[in-house]
Amino acid sequence: MSDRIWNFGAGPGVLPEPVLKAAQRDIWNIAGSGIGIMEHSHRGKVFDAVIADAERQCRDLAGISDEYHVLFLQGGASTQFAMVPMNLLPKGGTADYLVTGVWSEKAVAEAKHVGTVHEAVSGKAGKYLAIPPAAAIRYSASPAYVHFTTNNTIYGTQWRAEPAPPAGVPLVADASSDMYSRPIDVRRYGLIYAGAQKNLGPSGVVLVIIRKDLVERAPSDLATMLQYRTHAEAKSLYNTPPTFGIYVMGEVFKWIRDSGGLAGMAERNAEKARVLYDFLDQSRYFRGTVERESRSVMNVCFRGPSDEAEGRFVAEATKAGLDGLKGHRSAGGMRASIYNAMPVEGCRALVEFMQRFEQANG
Amino acid sequence: MSDRIWNFGAGPGVLPEPVLKAAQRDIWNIAGSGIGIMEHSHRGKVFDAVIADAERQCRDLAGISDEYHVLFLQGGASTQFAMVPMNLLPKGGTADYLVTGVWSEKAVAEAKHVGTVHEAVSGKAGKYLAIPPAAAIRYSASPAYVHFTTNNTIYGTQWRAEPAPPAGVPLVADASSDMYSRPIDVRRYGLIYAGAQKNLGPSGVVLVIIRKDLVERAPSDLATMLQYRTHAEAKSLYNTPPTFGIYVMGEVFKWIRDSGGLAGMAERNAEKARVLYDFLDQSRYFRGTVERESRSVMNVCFRGPSDEAEGRFVAEATKAGLDGLKGHRSAGGMRASIYNAMPVEGCRALVEFMQRFEQANG
Repeated sequence: MSDRIWNFGAGPGVLPEPVLKAAQRDIWNIAGSGIGIMEHSHRGKVFDAVIADAERQCRDLAGISDEYHVLFLQGGASTQFAMVPMNLLPKGGTADYLVTGVWSEKAVAEAKHVGTVHEAVSGKAGKYLAIPPAAAIRYSASPAYVHFTTNNTIYGTQWRAEPAPPAGVPLVADASSDMYSRPIDVRRYGLIYAGAQKNLGPSGVVLVIIRKDLVERAPSDLATMLQYRTHAEAKSLYNTPPTFGIYVMGEVFKWIRDSGGLAGMAERNAEKARVLYDFLDQSRYFRGTVERESRSVMNVCFRGPSDEAEGRFVAEATKAGLDGLKGHRSAGGMRASIYNAMPVEGCRALVEFMQRFEQANG
Repeated sequence: MSDRIWNFGAGPGVLPEPVLKAAQRDIWNIAGSGIGIMEHSHRGKVFDAVIADAERQCRDLAGISDEYHVLFLQGGASTQFAMVPMNLLPKGGTADYLVTGVWSEKAVAEAKHVGTVHEAVSGKAGKYLAIPPAAAIRYSASPAYVHFTTNNTIYGTQWRAEPAPPAGVPLVADASSDMYSRPIDVRRYGLIYAGAQKNLGPSGVVLVIIRKDLVERAPSDLATMLQYRTHAEAKSLYNTPPTFGIYVMGEVFKWIRDSGGLAGMAERNAEKARVLYDFLDQSRYFRGTVERESRSVMNVCFRGPSDEAEGRFVAEATKAGLDGLKGHRSAGGMRASIYNAMPVEGCRALVEFMQRFEQANG
């Protein structure tokens, strides 16, 4: 019997147990070096191999070509909200944002510090409970880039496919909560960024995949650490990077590879989501909150019949070893986050618990 | 017998073994929660206790009053080089920098993106092999702040005491490489920042201690993540913080407390430095490179009789289980970094090895 419980938290979220075991070992002494992974110089041979391997695994999983830099940065998606316009939005230019939730709104707010923002579509009127249809998007005449949020953790919505910006306009994605949960065609993007703490690793490292020509767009008077150019030229080693986080990310990439790659993740995640949504669709007590076509495979949001019942459900679930099910404070209700590392057994255990709760209270 | 070797690397550097053992345990399941430290929500009860405890330990060690915020941020000292002037240097203002090495130079370069920099003193002509005397410092008429680097890892120099800025001018310190290696009177400072990866924890978290009135100086159009105000108001939880790094830092603070606090660290570090400098002072083969009054207690830099002998020394030392002794590429020679977690036994082992090497080659 494991002493670990089912962790449905929205992030930092559950990590694969083989990765945790590797980290336990390597914290003391990695690769027979006599020194733990946290204590190695970022300029030494051992860490050189760690970061090179993490980058190679990252590239291999999605077939990322040499036309892109793969960078490991700090500051999370929140810093990327600012770095994207600082680097890519020229003076007098306009950037288009597809607004599908609070994280998109925060990205818009940071871009407005730099230049003009055009909201090409917004789901706000519908309380962000659906991804807007392609036909509703109205791009501006000549946007510097188009920004969207691939998966919206708070509401449990997810784009089925990438939006299609005007020809030649770089597509920029905040993919923090569904990166590498399914295959991704990186060639469709100018820039992808993803905080690690959902599907990729611990918090404190953000993966940035950027087309090489775009790193040259930054104004040269921008602070050194805020220029993609700096990190691209130094291969993420301009300053001391978050070495342990990069190590863990590399281990997670290997676990994904050994678990069937991105296609394997997509299959596994679809099955997990099906287990939960199928139950919700037939339940007379619980109900999903999101339009069927917009449902997230990562964050399954649902409600009970009353606030009181929901509070009791979350409390009893926690006692039963099903943790992190309380919905985001701005959405209420319940949310089961089922990132890559959550096994299907966790989702089945949750459904069994919901069935019992429904029978007892319905 | 331990399978670990002596790690004299300049950073990321050696961590206390009890901290590594705690991390090994808590990565799997922290505080009986059934969830590992990396997998806990930064908004949950378990991490609440972790960050509150880290802050309390940090405050207790140096007696930091409520007049200061204690923040755990990302981006390292390199990002602080930019954030300090962005937040504290008003339009048309001048900031004074005491330049004692490459890290000071980098801080100056970032401040020049924001406003006017006055180099109140520079050790460059002396190749940064000494800390300039107080009498050589020439402050500008009304600096917004005075910035200095407490310890210079590359050259092995360290300020014995704080410089004394003009009355009312905030003193700002990059204390990345000697923070909490000795007692510090925080009331002398407006702002102290320190990347964790030398004395405090793993890379990827930077400790910022800032006087409360100073957080209000930032222009409101500055990117949200770059304002100290943001992180002060949110108690380092505006966005997902580097949760694991903060956890490790908290464990290191407890280890410092249990090892005699900052006075205990100062005593331990002075003894370690004495072991090495005493040997260097009497050696006819090796020689220290730094003026006696400026010698660092953290980074002991020394040379051998020739580049060839130095290369051989470093290679043989590595084979003998004494790692990380190669000097910084811009200084050459050797460097033994002896941060808090390095035991005096490591320094004695190094001296014994140097004695044998000198006898065989001298």
